[in-house]
Amino acid sequence: MRALRKLSPGPGFEMVEVPIPEYGLDDVLIEVLANSICGTDLHIADWDPWSADHVVTPVTMGHELTGIVRERGANVSAPEIGQLVSVESHVICNVCDWCRTGQGHLCPSTELLGVHRDGAFAEYVAVPAQNAYPDPPEMALSIASLQENFGNAVHTATVTEVAGRKVLVTGSGPVGLMTIAVAKAKGARAVYTTDVSDYRLELAMTMGADLTLNPMKDDVAGIISDATDAGGVDVLFEMSGAPAAIETGFAMLKPGGEAAMLGLTGKKIEFDFDDNIIFKGATVYGIVGRRISQTWLEMRGLIRSGAIDLSPVVTHRFALDDYEKAFDLMASGQCGKIVMFPDPSLADGPLS
Amino acid sequence: MRALRKLSPGPGFEMVEVPIPEYGLDDVLIEVLANSICGTDLHIADWDPWSADHVVTPVTMGHELTGIVRERGANVSAPEIGQLVSVESHVICNVCDWCRTGQGHLCPSTELLGVHRDGAFAEYVAVPAQNAYPDPPEMALSIASLQENFGNAVHTATVTEVAGRKVLVTGSGPVGLMTIAVAKAKGARAVYTTDVSDYRLELAMTMGADLTLNPMKDDVAGIISDATDAGGVDVLFEMSGAPAAIETGFAMLKPGGEAAMLGLTGKKIEFDFDDNIIFKGATVYGIVGRRISQTWLEMRGLIRSGAIDLSPVVTHRFALDDYEKAFDLMASGQCGKIVMFPDPSLADGPLS
Amino acid sequence: MRALRKLSPGPGFEMVEVPIPEYGLDDVLIEVLANSICGTDLHIADWDPWSADHVVTPVTMGHELTGIVRERGANVSAPEIGQLVSVESHVICNVCDWCRTGQGHLCPSTELLGVHRDGAFAEYVAVPAQNAYPDPPEMALSIASLQENFGNAVHTATVTEVAGRKVLVTGSGPVGLMTIAVAKAKGARAVYTTDVSDYRLELAMTMGADLTLNPMKDDVAGIISDATDAGGVDVLFEMSGAPAAIETGFAMLKPGGEAAMLGLTGKKIEFDFDDNIIFKGATVYGIVGRRISQTWLEMRGLIRSGAIDLSPVVTHRFALDDYEKAFDLMASGQCGKIVMFPDPSLADGPLS
Amino acid sequence: MRALRKLSPGPGFEMVEVPIPEYGLDDVLIEVLANSICGTDLHIADWDPWSADHVVTPVTMGHELTGIVRERGANVSAPEIGQLVSVESHVICNVCDWCRTGQGHLCPSTELLGVHRDGAFAEYVAVPAQNAYPDPPEMALSIASLQENFGNAVHTATVTEVAGRKVLVTGSGPVGLMTIAVAKAKGARAVYTTDVSDYRLELAMTMGADLTLNPMKDDVAGIISDATDAGGVDVLFEMSGAPAAIETGFAMLKPGGEAAMLGLTGKKIEFDFDDNIIFKGATVYGIVGRRISQTWLEMRGLIRSGAIDLSPVVTHRFALDDYEKAFDLMASGQCGKIVMFPDPSLADGPLS
Repeated sequence: MRALRKLSPGPGFEMVEVPIPEYGLDDVLIEVLANSICGTDLHIADWDPWSADHVVTPVTMGHELTGIVRERGANVSAPEIGQLVSVESHVICNVCDWCRTGQGHLCPSTELLGVHRDGAFAEYVAVPAQNAYPDPPEMALSIASLQENFGNAVHTATVTEVAGRKVLVTGSGPVGLMTIAVAKAKGARAVYTTDVSDYRLELAMTMGADLTLNPMKDDVAGIISDATDAGGVDVLFEMSGAPAAIETGFAMLKPGGEAAMLGLTGKKIEFDFDDNIIFKGATVYGIVGRRISQTWLEMRGLIRSGAIDLSPVVTHRFALDDYEKAFDLMASGQCGKIVMFPDPSLADGPLS
Repeated sequence: MRALRKLSPGPGFEMVEVPIPEYGLDDVLIEVLANSICGTDLHIADWDPWSADHVVTPVTMGHELTGIVRERGANVSAPEIGQLVSVESHVICNVCDWCRTGQGHLCPSTELLGVHRDGAFAEYVAVPAQNAYPDPPEMALSIASLQENFGNAVHTATVTEVAGRKVLVTGSGPVGLMTIAVAKAKGARAVYTTDVSDYRLELAMTMGADLTLNPMKDDVAGIISDATDAGGVDVLFEMSGAPAAIETGFAMLKPGGEAAMLGLTGKKIEFDFDDNIIFKGATVYGIVGRRISQTWLEMRGLIRSGAIDLSPVVTHRFALDDYEKAFDLMASGQCGKIVMFPDPSLADGPLS
Repeated sequence: MRALRKLSPGPGFEMVEVPIPEYGLDDVLIEVLANSICGTDLHIADWDPWSADHVVTPVTMGHELTGIVRERGANVSAPEIGQLVSVESHVICNVCDWCRTGQGHLCPSTELLGVHRDGAFAEYVAVPAQNAYPDPPEMALSIASLQENFGNAVHTATVTEVAGRKVLVTGSGPVGLMTIAVAKAKGARAVYTTDVSDYRLELAMTMGADLTLNPMKDDVAGIISDATDAGGVDVLFEMSGAPAAIETGFAMLKPGGEAAMLGLTGKKIEFDFDDNIIFKGATVYGIVGRRISQTWLEMRGLIRSGAIDLSPVVTHRFALDDYEKAFDLMASGQCGKIVMFPDPSLADGPLS
Repeated sequence: MRALRKLSPGPGFEMVEVPIPEYGLDDVLIEVLANSICGTDLHIADWDPWSADHVVTPVTMGHELTGIVRERGANVSAPEIGQLVSVESHVICNVCDWCRTGQGHLCPSTELLGVHRDGAFAEYVAVPAQNAYPDPPEMALSIASLQENFGNAVHTATVTEVAGRKVLVTGSGPVGLMTIAVAKAKGARAVYTTDVSDYRLELAMTMGADLTLNPMKDDVAGIISDATDAGGVDVLFEMSGAPAAIETGFAMLKPGGEAAMLGLTGKKIEFDFDDNIIFKGATVYGIVGRRISQTWLEMRGLIRSGAIDLSPVVTHRFALDDYEKAFDLMASGQCGKIVMFPDPSLADGPLS
């Protein structure tokens, strides 16, 4: 089969022919129908310091996918062969204290698809059956594929109540965009959002943001202060990892406010705990991955309720063979979510 | 001024002329613009056992209102004279452990408007300034008036997360109807609702219910079981006080589910703790009044977000002088919320 | 090997010779060193209605045990052969929504040792490896064996904060006794407890109760009212299943109080939701089993902290062959926890 | 009366004669029996940058006290004249959203005794009646006086469950010492603590610490790693404000762990959000003051339960007139809590 692989440490990757993966007693073999690109894939392609520390080569890249179960190991009773599934990308150990107490997303032995084991940018992928979540029949392939990433947004926006409250989302990349949608679907009084890209701020408006602000042009603090009668926001969802956004976000947070942080800074930053957290009596939640399986259940419910429409997030589609175009566009930032299809004929037609 | 008063213990009440109320150092005097009728008002009119135990006569009835601040006591710094306000009906002591820990709705010394002290079915009412919440300028009078009652719905629907979850609301009277709206605004996967009145079930559909069921006609348990793939609901909001509804509601509740109970049964009922609560590991929340001031802040946010439209709940309007018609209609059950206006000219025009 | 078995539906059971159990790929085979008797075992022996509905005969009885791992299936990597372990009695499916979200104690496919599959009153028992928790080396066998039961107490007493608060424990059987100890170890301001047996109330005092009350003799409501300056208790742990205790317990509960209910009533009871739950704004938690594995981690920490001494709960020890004496004593109620030992020599020596 | 006052901006303070304070309609006038010194008092004496920004001169210093109600304003119904009371030092507005929702400790209009209004190092002080909490009759004056400070410890140690869990307290000043005691009283599995002062680490051992570590001498990370089988701690209470302690503390925190931060750093510090909070899925709580009145109720319960003995924290007593000796000792760090007595005869006798 064809697979997009990082063959050795260092920048770059290539499309190669490899055997269809073997699968274990507890695994399913999935024929991949769609796979979406994550910012992490770009970092792995470019071989940033995190990748150099974590990626085990050679490896097939990619960790967001949807596909059809074609084979399953002897111990597997669900899902059925022929079932359309989407995939949790964290393969967890099931036996550590975290896995056994509903905190599997913190399992210290986690293996990630496309990082520690062969991933999804290929015609087939093998994953543990417990990582394959059956998709509802009405779900579009492009939406199904990005659920893994949507789960980050749901995990973030469900750590606290937002109904009737004012929310600031710093960073309007794909996860930020989806977080806006979740906050609105949960009854937020208002959602303010920031990004340095006007392209993304336009998408943010489409996703339901009440106010979009570009810190390169706008007086973010002044405008949010006006919008909140100088009171600040109740909730901060920090999705950017940018030190300036973190600083602005906490400055806008009310006494007693809550902040969920998902964006990675990639390095130490300067931070004022006194004013930002202690005097404010603020609460801060670190967000990684998705709660397994809690978040999957919640995101399915949110999508199926009709309260969330993710289709505007999918801005481009490509055949997997056109991966170079897809990665170049991804690098430009002039896009929302990009979905690739191993079968080129699926890349046509209406978006999502 | 005119006031609708219960003059002595026993059924009945009458419109009489009384002096404009005196107000204390910490009070505001409000000119009443609109007041809505609550089921409790009907019970007081009919002098049910609860009324006989609690109502202190003579008393001006009514506890849901909106109006304009016309005078204020010497200690009052807010709200301003001329401000449109709506009113929390529970006058609390401010000094007990509950009042001092954000649990004022449980204050043992609470006095209720229209029960322990003169209420709102009149041209003027005096209340502590802290009970008067400024209304946003865009809010219709009829909506403003029923906020006290809406607060019951918000209090109920905010004790637990509903986003992405399946919810059953048993009882579709006004508070049930508003609870449906809150659950939908907070992203519920689906809201199922029951009532013995088809009139109310139609209103429930308007408020966003996904499924409306009349236990006199429908196989409630069977239909909900089908709708939930035999899994049952995640959340029960019990608004009816009817033993049969309580029984059905808990039977439909999932293991690990949560139930918030607001409807009063008026007497002991038979209940199976083993199957309904213990084996299920269920959690049950008793709901009384509104959290002061937490719920008022939340409901304001929910209304102003645009996520909730309460106007369908207001089905009829009357001049206060037509109170007999209003109470007769209320007794018939063929209504949602009825709003009365001391100034008859305000009772005309479009509903809400 | 010898095993105490219920051979067919109906009262009674007998000691028989059976083969050592077979074990599966994911199982461990445990040589039983100690097993404690639970109230449920007595009900099964007597064949009460619950037993008639649930017990699958023939079956080896018993579900509380400690022992040494002697063999393990091919898939098992932990615990080691030779390891002393105690056992979670609920065998869960690992694949349902509850198991996958840290709510395994609510798994609808749960099988109980001694009820649905062969249990612990025998020389050997086979259980899934994930049900076998390694014991700390300093733990006495009799304490180790009753941990399953202790977990009920820990599960109950950890649903809410008790530090600095007044707690009422209704029912002072073994689980009630251990709940007293947990509440005290967690810093409760005072623990009041009730039982109809003076024998058990004396044990309650040993476990740290501040006040013990026998409703057959004492004015429970009056004494607790005095002890709490008429304020009532903050927390109720209902461990008796007795309707009168439930009624008293809720009557003593403060507005805003919390109740955790574990005792089974065995039938519907009359209950006043208005006064007990709704007007009080009370919260009620149904408690079943132990949170898997959350509660096991918590109870290990509590025991190892030295804050809890369970040894007074173990009042009697017998050789397993003396099971008739043990069951007779258990039926008399003049005991705390009874521990049996397949090896008679272990039944001697100091208690615990 | 005599009062220790900061007469103008800048270092220093002096004992002067001033009139007994006037008191308002809602106030009580308290004859001060004991007042304890806080680290903040030292900063105010030395006029650090925070003091220069916040202290309004001239002002009587001091904010921890116990005394007897001698007069009360016309609106005050409790506490009684003659009642022994201790005092919450934050005078809050009662009308803002925070005050009205049980979050008064975050009131933006808070005035502090000894900072914004006349404080406690004097023979008399006037405070709002709601700030005066009646003391139980058995409580020693020196313990009563330091309750305000103890409330910081209780606020910190009640934001999360510690029962059965491993806790690290960084910083063993008076609040750290009392936090150790609360964690132990709530059933912590083990409490590890750090400080650069061996004197304080000895006190920490007396307060119940399981392990005391001096980062100037000990390999803190290595020893805690050993003590936790390389797992780290479940809970971090950061009481030092020292950047190195914050770094070590978070490094020792388990995935899924919780940190409560009270120590002020006084400036921005470098911090790694990725490794410390995000990848760990950690939760961080900022702690300021005491929850009013929630924390006062909790601390009273904890003290009265007998689970906490604060007397070792009080290491020295002085007559108020010997304030220079007291402040010099405080500056040396060779002390726990120092209590001063306006009546010199009370400074004698056994400590606490």
